[in-house]
Amino acid sequence: MVNNGLPLSSIRSNQVKIDGGYWGERQATVRTSTIPAIHHQLEITHRTDAWHLHGGENDPRFDGHIVHKFWDSDLAKWIEAVGYSLDSYPDPDLEQLADKVIQAIKEGQLEDGYLNSFFTVIEPQNKWRNLRDWHELYDAGHLMEGAAAYYQGTGKRVLLDTLARYADHIDARFGPGEQQVHGYCGHPEVELGLVKLYRATGEKRYLNLAKYFVDERGQEPNFFDIEAAARGDDPTKFWAKTYHYCQAHKPLREQNVATGHSVRAAYLYAGAADISAETGDSTLLDACRVIWEDLTSKQMYITGGLGPAHANEGFTFGYDLPNESAYAETCASIALVFWAKSMFDIDPDSRYTDVMERALYNGIMSGVSWEGNQFFYANPLASYPYVNPHEHFSGINTPKHYRRQDWFVCPCCPPNLARVVANLGHYFSSHSADTIYLHLYNHSHMRVSLPAGSVQIDQETNYPWNGDVSLTIGVAQATPFKLALRIPNWASNFTLRVNGVTVSANVQRGYAFIDRTWNNGDTIELALPMSVERIVSHPNVRHNAGTVALQRGPVVYCLEEADNGPNLANLVIPRTAKLVGNVDSSLFSGVGVITGEAVRTEPAVWAGGLYQPQSALQYSYDAVPFKAIPYSLWANREPGEMRVWVREQ
Amino acid sequence: MVNNGLPLSSIRSNQVKIDGGYWGERQATVRTSTIPAIHHQLEITHRTDAWHLHGGENDPRFDGHIVHKFWDSDLAKWIEAVGYSLDSYPDPDLEQLADKVIQAIKEGQLEDGYLNSFFTVIEPQNKWRNLRDWHELYDAGHLMEGAAAYYQGTGKRVLLDTLARYADHIDARFGPGEQQVHGYCGHPEVELGLVKLYRATGEKRYLNLAKYFVDERGQEPNFFDIEAAARGDDPTKFWAKTYHYCQAHKPLREQNVATGHSVRAAYLYAGAADISAETGDSTLLDACRVIWEDLTSKQMYITGGLGPAHANEGFTFGYDLPNESAYAETCASIALVFWAKSMFDIDPDSRYTDVMERALYNGIMSGVSWEGNQFFYANPLASYPYVNPHEHFSGINTPKHYRRQDWFVCPCCPPNLARVVANLGHYFSSHSADTIYLHLYNHSHMRVSLPAGSVQIDQETNYPWNGDVSLTIGVAQATPFKLALRIPNWASNFTLRVNGVTVSANVQRGYAFIDRTWNNGDTIELALPMSVERIVSHPNVRHNAGTVALQRGPVVYCLEEADNGPNLANLVIPRTAKLVGNVDSSLFSGVGVITGEAVRTEPAVWAGGLYQPQSALQYSYDAVPFKAIPYSLWANREPGEMRVWVREQ
Repeated sequence: MVNNGLPLSSIRSNQVKIDGGYWGERQATVRTSTIPAIHHQLEITHRTDAWHLHGGENDPRFDGHIVHKFWDSDLAKWIEAVGYSLDSYPDPDLEQLADKVIQAIKEGQLEDGYLNSFFTVIEPQNKWRNLRDWHELYDAGHLMEGAAAYYQGTGKRVLLDTLARYADHIDARFGPGEQQVHGYCGHPEVELGLVKLYRATGEKRYLNLAKYFVDERGQEPNFFDIEAAARGDDPTKFWAKTYHYCQAHKPLREQNVATGHSVRAAYLYAGAADISAETGDSTLLDACRVIWEDLTSKQMYITGGLGPAHANEGFTFGYDLPNESAYAETCASIALVFWAKSMFDIDPDSRYTDVMERALYNGIMSGVSWEGNQFFYANPLASYPYVNPHEHFSGINTPKHYRRQDWFVCPCCPPNLARVVANLGHYFSSHSADTIYLHLYNHSHMRVSLPAGSVQIDQETNYPWNGDVSLTIGVAQATPFKLALRIPNWASNFTLRVNGVTVSANVQRGYAFIDRTWNNGDTIELALPMSVERIVSHPNVRHNAGTVALQRGPVVYCLEEADNGPNLANLVIPRTAKLVGNVDSSLFSGVGVITGEAVRTEPAVWAGGLYQPQSALQYSYDAVPFKAIPYSLWANREPGEMRVWVREQ
Repeated sequence: MVNNGLPLSSIRSNQVKIDGGYWGERQATVRTSTIPAIHHQLEITHRTDAWHLHGGENDPRFDGHIVHKFWDSDLAKWIEAVGYSLDSYPDPDLEQLADKVIQAIKEGQLEDGYLNSFFTVIEPQNKWRNLRDWHELYDAGHLMEGAAAYYQGTGKRVLLDTLARYADHIDARFGPGEQQVHGYCGHPEVELGLVKLYRATGEKRYLNLAKYFVDERGQEPNFFDIEAAARGDDPTKFWAKTYHYCQAHKPLREQNVATGHSVRAAYLYAGAADISAETGDSTLLDACRVIWEDLTSKQMYITGGLGPAHANEGFTFGYDLPNESAYAETCASIALVFWAKSMFDIDPDSRYTDVMERALYNGIMSGVSWEGNQFFYANPLASYPYVNPHEHFSGINTPKHYRRQDWFVCPCCPPNLARVVANLGHYFSSHSADTIYLHLYNHSHMRVSLPAGSVQIDQETNYPWNGDVSLTIGVAQATPFKLALRIPNWASNFTLRVNGVTVSANVQRGYAFIDRTWNNGDTIELALPMSVERIVSHPNVRHNAGTVALQRGPVVYCLEEADNGPNLANLVIPRTAKLVGNVDSSLFSGVGVITGEAVRTEPAVWAGGLYQPQSALQYSYDAVPFKAIPYSLWANREPGEMRVWVREQ
C-alpha cells in the first residue's frame, strides 16, 4: 500500500459490457476482424507452429519469412487479446484455436522450464547470451501477460502453469545471489508480466523478481558491459551507442526525463508503477512522477504519441516534436496507457487519465484501420507523398503515400492494439472501498463490488461526439459510496445533475465527487460542453509555430486531402472563422467532423519556376470550406495528404 | 562545335585579377587560410604520404585515421586548388610543397601506368573489382583535373605526364573493344577529368574515352550487374538499392529528371555538357537541357543547394525541399556551378549563369567559415539544436548546434571549395570571336584576347552589397566587339550608360548587348537596383508555405539567433513591414544586412503544459526589430538557431 486506501482496485474488463457507442463498435471490430486477421498472419509466418520447425531456420516452412528473435511476443500478445476477449465474449472456436497454440507452447517448454521458441528451435547455442539485444525476458514477459489474461478469460491454467515454471527458471537464474546473474532485459516488459503473474498466482517471488529487475537496472558496473565482454564483444561498440536507448544508463530512481526507445521507456515506467503499487515503494512512484511530468509537458504529441525519432524509435529532447517525421509508435501510446492507469491507481489524479484518454482516442486508434485489419507502426501527425530515396525501383520520382499495412516484419503493434482494446473495460474505472472513479465515458454497463454492496452503472452517451453523459445507478439496496466522475481537461466547464437536480460538484484532482447514499435508479447527468477548440502548442515547439490543431472533446481532428484537396500547407484557418463540430452520418458509421471556412494562400497565378518575388504575385484569398475528421481515421479513404497542425492567422 | 560560334571560349582564371571586393577577400582567405588548413589535414591523415605507407592499413602511421578508398581525390583537389592559385599568385613555398606531393604520386605509379594509392598500398588485390562503389575512376578524374590545373599554374608537366600515362592505361582497359571492359565509374567525375586532360594535352583519345563512359552508362545489360556477378556478389543486393543512385539506371540521353546522389548527378551532367561542347553531340545537350529544367524548376534550394535527402545524399522528387533536414552538400552546389558554366558556353543564356551566381554566393560559400578553415558538408536552410538520438554520451537531452568542422572522414567538400574559389576568374566571363560575356560582377581587372585585339575590362563595384557596376575598357586601339552584360534575374530593371550616356540595351537571353567599336577608356555604368525582395516558393513546396526568404541582389539572407534571439519560428515579418538593405560595417569585414520590424507570435503568457486552447491565450504582437545576414555567413558567431524561410503574414 502506497497510502491509505491506495492503490485503488482495478476492474476486470468483463465487468464492463461495452455494447454500443464508439468503443462498442471498435471492440467488436477487434473481435471480429483484428484478432482473426492477426491469427492469419501468425499462422502464415509460422509463429503458431514455431515449436515444430525442427529444421530450424532451414525448415522449408519458413518459406522466406524473416524470423526475429522475439516472435514469441507477437503470439503472446494475441493470446492475451484472445483471453480478454473471451472473458467478455465467449467463443468456443476462438478458444479452441488458442488452446492449440497454448498446447504447442507447453510442449515446447524444456525440462528446466526454459521457454522460448527462437532460442530452442533456431539458436539454442545463444540462450541467455545477450539480454541487451535479444529480448528473451521481453518474450517471457509477454507470455506471462498472455497467460494471466487467458487464465482470466477461460479459467484454464495450462499456460499460467507453464509460465510459472518459466518464471521459476528465470527467478533461479537472475537475482542478487552470488550464483545468480545480476542482469535484466534490454527491452523492459518482463516487469509487467511478472506483476501480472504474481497477481494471478499469488506467488510473491515473481513480484520480488520484477522489483529486482527494476532495482538492478542501470547500476554500476553496468550489466550490459559485463555481458558484452563475457561473450567477447566490445561493450563500446553497442549499436545503439548508449544505454539511454534501453533506460539502463543509470538507475531509474536517478532518472528524471523520458529517454531512449519510447516503448522500452514506457513499459519500464509502467512496470515500476505497478511494482510501487504492490510494494509500497514510494521512491519508484517519485521517479515515475518526475518522468511523467517531463514526458507530458515536453515530449508528448497532442495525439498521445511518444518518440519523435526514427533513429532510436524514441525520444530526443524537450519540445522536439516534428510532425511529418514523427515516429510515435502505436506500441508507445499503448504503453503510455498502461502507465497512466497504473499511476492513477497509486496517485489518483486526472492528469493521468486525461492522457490515457488522449492516447486511446488518437495515437492508439490511428494504429488500426476502420476495418480492423491493417495497421500503422509509426503515427505521423502530417503526411505527404514521399519517396524512400533508396527505393526507386518502379519508376523514379514517383512519391507514394503512407498507408496502413497488413503486417510487419516486426509486428509488435497489431496484437498490442488488439489486447488493449479487448481489455478496454479495465480502463473505465478504478475504485477504493468507498469510491468509484469513472474515467471513460461510453455507452456501457459496469458492475463494481464495494464492501457496501454491488453497484451497477449504466452509461448512455454518444461520447466522444457529444459530451452529454447519462448514468443510472443500479443497487440492490440503498448504498453509500462516492462516485468520482472525471472532468476531462478539455472541458472548459460542466454541469452535473443528480436525479434532475443540479449539484455543485466537489472537484478534486480533476474528478467531481458525489458523496451520497445511492438508491436504485438514481440518475446522474454530466454535461460536458463539447465546443471546437483551437489548440496551440508551447511556443518552443517550432514545428507547430503559426498553426493550430482542432480538438473537440478528447478527439484530435485532422485535415485530409480526400475532403480538402491537395496542398494542405496552403490552407489557413482564420482566427475569426466559425468552426462547427457535428456528426457526419455518412462518414464511416457516423463520426465527428469539424467544418468551417478557410482561405487558401496560393497566389492566384504562379508565373513559373521555383521562386518568385512576392511583389510580382497576386493573392485572392477566397474562402473555401474545409472539413476535418478524427485523426485516428485518416488514411482510411483514398490516399492523400494529411495534417493535424493547420496554419492559422 | 555545337553551333556556329559555339562553344564559347572560357577564360583562364589568371586573366582575371580579383584584387578587392567580396571575391577578392574570399579568394585571399582561401589562399592564406583554406589551402594551408587543408594541407595540414592531408598531412596529418597521411594522404600526402599514402604511397609510403608500405605496411598498408597496419602501418602505425595511420594512427586510427580512417582510410577511405578515394582519398587520392582529396589530395588531387588540393593540388588543383594550388595550381589555380599559383596561376594568379605565385608562391614558391606552396609550389615546393605541391611538387613534393606530386613527386610521390609519380613514384607511386605502377609500371603499367596504374595510379591509385589505396589500391596500390592497401588493397592491391581489389584493383578494378568494383567500379560501382570504389571510386577508382573518380580518383583518376580528380587527379587529371589536378594535373591540368597544376600544369596551367606552373607549366610543370610531371603530374600531367603521369596522368596521361594513367589515362592511357584506363583507355586500354575500358572501351567498346571485345577485349575491353564495357564499364564506367559509379561516381561520375573522370569524364570531367578526361576532357581537361584532353584540353591540356590535345590527345583526342581522352575525349573519346570520356564520351564512351557517358554513352555506355546505363546501357543494358547493366555493367554494374555484370561486374557484381563477376566478383560473386548478388547484384540485387546493391546497398543503395537502385542505379538511380549513380545515374546508371538508363542511358543519360533517356533521362529527364535529376536523380540519385546529387554530386554524382551534377558531375555527370557537367561532364556530358563538356563532351557535347567538344564533340558537337547535340543529343547530350538536349538531355542536359531537360534535366537542367527539372532540377532548377523543381529540385533546387533557393541557395543553389541540391539534394534534400541524407539517405542517398541526393534528390528525391519535385518540390520536396525540407529546410532543417536539407542535405544540400557543398560539393553538389560546386558541381552545379561547373555544369552551369559549361551549359552557358554551349547554350548562352543567363538561365545558367543566374543559377551559377546563386550557388556561388549562397550554397557554396556557406560551406566555409569566414576564417576559411572550417567547413560544412551539408548546408541546411534552417538550423535548430538537435540531438543524434544515438549519441547521448555526454548527458541526455542536451541538444547541440550544427557547426562547421575542421575536417571530415570523407573530406570531399573542403578542397572542392578551395579549387572553385581559387579558379573563380574562370567563371567571370566567356567569349566568342566578337562577343565578351560578363557573368560576374566584382572589383576586378580582366584581360580577354579577341581576334580584333586584346581587351582589358576593369570593374569597380561593391557588388553584391550594391548593384552599381562601373566598367572601364582598355584597348590598344579602337576595337569593335560586343559586350554582353548579364542582367541578373533578381534585378527587376536596370539602367546602362556608356561614357555617361544612357543607352537602351538590347537584351537577349538575359544579357544586355552593347555592340560598338570601343576606345581606350570607354566607361560603362550598369545600375542594378538592389531592393530587398521577399521571395516566395512555388505553392507545391509545402515546407515553405506561409514563409518568405529575403534576398537582396544575388545574396540570400537568413535570420540568426545571434541577432534575433531564440525561437525564430515565432518571428513573423508582416507584409507591410519596411525592409531596409544596408551594409553593416561592424559585421565581419562589412557585409550586407537586412533590417526591419517583425512581430513575435508567442502568447504573452504561457500557462504551462504543451498544449493550450487558443481561447485561453492572449497575444500582444509587439513589434520587434530584426536583422538578417547573408546565409553563407551563418554559424560564424555564437551557436544558435537559423532560418532562411521566415514566417510572414
